[in-house]
Amino acid sequence: MQGVDPAWLPDEVFRPIGTRRTLIRGSGPLVDTVHGEVAGACDRFGGRVERDASPGPFDLVLELTGADASEGFTFERGDGCTTVTATGQSGLLYGLFHVVRLGEDAFRKQRPRETHGPALALRMLDHWDNVAVHPVMGQVERGYAGGSLFWQDGRARGELLGRVRAYGRLLAACGINAVAVNNVNVHATEAHLLTDRLGEVADIAGALRPYGVRTHLSVTFAAPIVLGGLSTADPLDDDVRGWWAEASARVYEAIPDFGGYVVKADSEGQPGPFAYGRSHADGANMLAAALEPHGGTVHWRAFVYNHRQDWRDRTTDRARAAHDHFVPLDGEFADNAVLQVKHGPMDFQVREPVSPLIGAMPRTRLAVELQATQEYTGQQRHVCWLGPMWSEVLRFRADGECSVGEVARGGLVAVSNVGDDPFWTGHPLAQANLYTFGRLAWQPHADPHQILDEWILLTFGTGPAAGLRAVLDGSWRTYEKYTAPLGVGWMVQPGHHYGPSVDGYEYSPWGTYHFADRDGIGVDRSAATGSGFAGQYAKPWAEMYESPDTCPDELLLFFHHMSYGHMLHSGKTVIQHIYDTHFEGVEEVEAARDVWASLVDLVDRARHARVAERFEEQLRSAREWRDQVNSYFLRKSGVPDAHGRRIY
Amino acid sequence: MQGVDPAWLPDEVFRPIGTRRTLIRGSGPLVDTVHGEVAGACDRFGGRVERDASPGPFDLVLELTGADASEGFTFERGDGCTTVTATGQSGLLYGLFHVVRLGEDAFRKQRPRETHGPALALRMLDHWDNVAVHPVMGQVERGYAGGSLFWQDGRARGELLGRVRAYGRLLAACGINAVAVNNVNVHATEAHLLTDRLGEVADIAGALRPYGVRTHLSVTFAAPIVLGGLSTADPLDDDVRGWWAEASARVYEAIPDFGGYVVKADSEGQPGPFAYGRSHADGANMLAAALEPHGGTVHWRAFVYNHRQDWRDRTTDRARAAHDHFVPLDGEFADNAVLQVKHGPMDFQVREPVSPLIGAMPRTRLAVELQATQEYTGQQRHVCWLGPMWSEVLRFRADGECSVGEVARGGLVAVSNVGDDPFWTGHPLAQANLYTFGRLAWQPHADPHQILDEWILLTFGTGPAAGLRAVLDGSWRTYEKYTAPLGVGWMVQPGHHYGPSVDGYEYSPWGTYHFADRDGIGVDRSAATGSGFAGQYAKPWAEMYESPDTCPDELLLFFHHMSYGHMLHSGKTVIQHIYDTHFEGVEEVEAARDVWASLVDLVDRARHARVAERFEEQLRSAREWRDQVNSYFLRKSGVPDAHGRRIY
Repeated sequence: MQGVDPAWLPDEVFRPIGTRRTLIRGSGPLVDTVHGEVAGACDRFGGRVERDASPGPFDLVLELTGADASEGFTFERGDGCTTVTATGQSGLLYGLFHVVRLGEDAFRKQRPRETHGPALALRMLDHWDNVAVHPVMGQVERGYAGGSLFWQDGRARGELLGRVRAYGRLLAACGINAVAVNNVNVHATEAHLLTDRLGEVADIAGALRPYGVRTHLSVTFAAPIVLGGLSTADPLDDDVRGWWAEASARVYEAIPDFGGYVVKADSEGQPGPFAYGRSHADGANMLAAALEPHGGTVHWRAFVYNHRQDWRDRTTDRARAAHDHFVPLDGEFADNAVLQVKHGPMDFQVREPVSPLIGAMPRTRLAVELQATQEYTGQQRHVCWLGPMWSEVLRFRADGECSVGEVARGGLVAVSNVGDDPFWTGHPLAQANLYTFGRLAWQPHADPHQILDEWILLTFGTGPAAGLRAVLDGSWRTYEKYTAPLGVGWMVQPGHHYGPSVDGYEYSPWGTYHFADRDGIGVDRSAATGSGFAGQYAKPWAEMYESPDTCPDELLLFFHHMSYGHMLHSGKTVIQHIYDTHFEGVEEVEAARDVWASLVDLVDRARHARVAERFEEQLRSAREWRDQVNSYFLRKSGVPDAHGRRIY
Repeated sequence: MQGVDPAWLPDEVFRPIGTRRTLIRGSGPLVDTVHGEVAGACDRFGGRVERDASPGPFDLVLELTGADASEGFTFERGDGCTTVTATGQSGLLYGLFHVVRLGEDAFRKQRPRETHGPALALRMLDHWDNVAVHPVMGQVERGYAGGSLFWQDGRARGELLGRVRAYGRLLAACGINAVAVNNVNVHATEAHLLTDRLGEVADIAGALRPYGVRTHLSVTFAAPIVLGGLSTADPLDDDVRGWWAEASARVYEAIPDFGGYVVKADSEGQPGPFAYGRSHADGANMLAAALEPHGGTVHWRAFVYNHRQDWRDRTTDRARAAHDHFVPLDGEFADNAVLQVKHGPMDFQVREPVSPLIGAMPRTRLAVELQATQEYTGQQRHVCWLGPMWSEVLRFRADGECSVGEVARGGLVAVSNVGDDPFWTGHPLAQANLYTFGRLAWQPHADPHQILDEWILLTFGTGPAAGLRAVLDGSWRTYEKYTAPLGVGWMVQPGHHYGPSVDGYEYSPWGTYHFADRDGIGVDRSAATGSGFAGQYAKPWAEMYESPDTCPDELLLFFHHMSYGHMLHSGKTVIQHIYDTHFEGVEEVEAARDVWASLVDLVDRARHARVAERFEEQLRSAREWRDQVNSYFLRKSGVPDAHGRRIY
């Protein structure tokens, strides 16, 4: 553990507790964890902790008052004592970290009793980690933080179990309670985690359990064939159902609190129920039935689309796919089957509308999937704090009434951005995304800027806080500015997805086009003249997106093909907007780099150096984006920049 | 060896010899090879072979009359006997294969004595084979014929030495006499072939030796550091020179007829003399000195350019690089140092002008490098017979007077297209490129179409000959038509180089741009207004390329940036030429596929099926090229097709 960044739990944040007298009441493994945390803090700072003892007085009482599975807790301050109670052990743990976050404030003035609890029961990270190094995707698919925390060269990393436990601790401190430990693309080696290599999963589960984090597994739909030797994986076949029931029972023998399965089926080449003429509800429900006796859940991903599309075919629109596939199945999924939907209709671009599927399945438990790993947002070489984007998504009134945060009854999931990097996330400031995700999953309507402040104060203290705010606050919009304009997306290098290539996906089979020609750019997704995708939305949105007059600027090219001369609501033409944002984006990166440089004496050396080094790459890359995108559109449109700046 | 395609040496071609009486006179290992070939033929067809015996009469006498290293031979027919004489053993072997090629004609009418011999002393294949699988480039860099003939997973393939011998036999039968057995990009594992893993090279040399093929090795310029533990590889350092001298002496102990070294230095990241402030002549001459006592040669590649160019920088022109770097060194290279120059100034595009370097170094031994492996010409999934292209290059009057074939005193080299594929070259018809290369290296001014006929008759017999001619003859121009127009090049997918991506290299660091905008396309390389590259040519060419009025259509966009409306000599505009050639190219592939299908009863089944399968891919790919390129330019230019055909 030496040399690993403490992230948002440096020793210092335990000082307010560690200098005081604490009483812990109750028993159980997570209460032991709470005790261990407080005892450790007292060791460091000279305070005192008692268990189930009466001779007071105490500054802090942490009391388990029940034996349920609740994650909530109460908090109050009166008579010189701060009291946290919980009816479930995890609740007590979350209560402890609430006190940690409050710091000295937890012990200052009177506070009436407050009740806290997560808005969403499942707050999960999906690790796209491969067990065996994939020839193309490597150890971690879309991983930008070194190797995997869990796996290396085909085996579980026993030597890292201590770090896995520390990871669980960080997750608990921001409210995350579930981790899927392998990639949704389940290759040959990974398939075996379900059966003969289950012991490796159990070891990881054991390291995460003390912090209330349950372990989930990505499984292949073809498991009955590839592992069970059956001739079919047909979800309605009795042998197949029996095989899954037995396999699941064995999983629960090894891991009694196992969370469940994550499944990517009929998606980008993965096997699924379509091969047997069955629906995705049939597929998901079969796995749900196998998990149900044990209290497990299947997370069934809705990322189903034609990834072998002919770019010449303008009648097919990938954005429509999830809605087209899944809305007809609303009401057919079992109670413990969760449909896991990416937040946007495409794939984690820097700007997408919210997926219309999210508001269109009222009788289905949905989980919403975000991407903390910055595949399309700078790959942890660029600062890009995603809090504002996620918050916009979660507050979006999906069905016209309820917000995404309310509709996501199946939970909030993020693709993890963590690896074996000493800073956990490669770019030290990318830790903010992980923290923000956890806190938003706990409370989807929280103000992301307050969460950012919380993260900054825990991680860096007050000294450099203003600078960090300046660097992070607008970083997502900055990234958007110097990359893909007006919701158009996909102007990235194919394959690895880092850096610009305006036409990189334009003639590909992936269904990701911008249709730029000498006159204009964008995808007509209107109901009247386009693919009809806009019509998949609930009432106010369908109308708003249908017309360029009412469509928000930032999504205009996602929904409409517009001429370069079209005047935006902002008062700029499309082409001038492209030029201006790309120049501005680079200037903002330069400014952020300078702010960071000014923090040199306020941030520890290694962390400062790592971020400074990444800023150089971000700036180089941002300039590359600016110049490629501007040159591309100048060459294509022939319209000069109104301000006469250099375009190549 | 079972199941391996006989290529141009099927048993049948030995029938004319194998049914007759042959006398072989002389001794030595290659005479034994000759004897073995004739004896094998007689075993199969009932003829008779004697060695150094007198009782005649004989139909064929093969006689070694000297003991020199000559590769020439005489051929005559009189008094019912055909006689081949040679003063060197390889000459006798080449004479035998001459008789094989003539078939029954060798034994028909009287023929006065003819003298044959190679125009070029060195006729070489460079294998870009890696010993250890390279993480990006695989076992064979730019290999499209399965794995390596020589190496697998880090070791020499002992089990394939029989196939290596058969490879040597095919090479001798078309006149090739040298093979470099490893990639010019010498990675860590491959470096050791020079020293502690020399035994593996010796084994390969032993398998090739019976057919007069000498073995060469690609070495890293940094060998004294990475293998010898020295602190420098400075070519003027005495320790470095001593290290190379000793290493070379040990090579010759193990392989007495070792050919020499191939070196890619200061090129695409490989180490070289620039690091020590030395010239490339210094570098090459140091290695030449080490090889000189043993009769070896260093092949020093001229492929030196800035591969980290900024695409924004229009003052740098990669096409100029080899001439700029090497012309000042003319006269400074040692006698046994050969400067190996790619035939074009860029990198094996389907159409390039001849490199101006070739005519500009009269006091240097130059070898000209071609690419048989079809990196940019369809990767052995497309039929693309390169004979006409190579012939045009070899007949080009490099310095205004002498042809490239005459100037290439250091030999002709091709990057091999052979792997462990049962058909040797993946696409069975790609064998024609290997054969044509060998024959053109022997006689650079030969008519490639006659060579093609020769190859067809040897390989397929007369039955399908007309069909094969129809399929192969124009296949290079067909490929050019549906890919990159008018010499512009580089419209390929970056990295693997298969399939179209018009802007794939447009904003890259590789120095390979087309500068297409809404008005026009092409690179101004004139002396008057462009990069000056045209001025690097000798007199007639410099003037011809300088002006769009005199520049040949097929190279127009290589030398000039032209508007889409510019009228070509052909009477078409640039844009209409692009559209027309792309439609024609696909039609020609369709026609060739149909011709091939009609040969089903005239070609053996496995070979027919393999080619038929590849034609489907070629057609799919050609349509993709057509549609992407035409769509790109329609979107950019806005000019509709004059014939109203479908462009997307």
